[in-house]
Amino acid sequence: MQKAFFQSIETSSCETRFPLDTFLDNLTFNEQGLIPVITQQHDTGQVLMMAWMNSEAIQKTLSSGKMTYWSRSRQAFWVKGETSGNTQTLKTMRIDCDGDALLCLVDQQGGGACHALRSNCFYFDVDAASASVVVNESQPS
Amino acid sequence: MQKAFFQSIETSSCETRFPLDTFLDNLTFNEQGLIPVITQQHDTGQVLMMAWMNSEAIQKTLSSGKMTYWSRSRQAFWVKGETSGNTQTLKTMRIDCDGDALLCLVDQQGGGACHALRSNCFYFDVDAASASVVVNESQPS
Repeated sequence: MQKAFFQSIETSSCETRFPLDTFLDNLTFNEQGLIPVITQQHDTGQVLMMAWMNSEAIQKTLSSGKMTYWSRSRQAFWVKGETSGNTQTLKTMRIDCDGDALLCLVDQQGGGACHALRSNCFYFDVDAASASVVVNESQPS
Repeated sequence: MQKAFFQSIETSSCETRFPLDTFLDNLTFNEQGLIPVITQQHDTGQVLMMAWMNSEAIQKTLSSGKMTYWSRSRQAFWVKGETSGNTQTLKTMRIDCDGDALLCLVDQQGGGACHALRSNCFYFDVDAASASVVVNESQPS
């Protein structure tokens, strides 16, 4: 049971060090073998996108330093920016307290993280008071 | 097809306004009826946690202003902080470009977002160079 591993170390002191393989072996992947990945610009804190990795995509990302997701629509590895030039260089990969999500701090190159030509994918703001949704960013002209 | 709706509006100008119900009807939920939610502290940009909401949890969060997730382990609504006091007040809910992820900017009350008594859930840093993982934050003493 993967969660048991994370429970067993949740009171660990700052700076405690563990073997990476033990962590990777205890991550929780969904039925498609995927784990959700939050991608955040390392210096501004802007959340750029959310996507998915399988075990091999994690290894590829760590070894290459280039964010490499698993595309669910194409069922293939997806080196972010390989065609657009908008690559993402990994600065720090973090694992959450129960091993079922990743947070990657990156440096986003090029025009932005989103396929819709915006800086980030979260460009729809909910305005609950007026029961509407508002676009919060222009596309580049 | 939910994604078609999002494709049809991806070139919308900044400030374009849509009915909220149309968005909620076109979100993509997984086989369990859930959508991933990234929770970020609104003023510092710290990513606090990742969790899940179903359609009703989204409505409850919007109407109450208190982050209300769906607990997969308990199979029940989970008003964050209801027992611990570490509630999260919603500032802004954002929807991503293809309607399969939410980003919630919140104000975290109390000791922190994580059940393991840390400010946030992402307290394991991967150090690929040494093939290890390092705890990046102390627990409060």
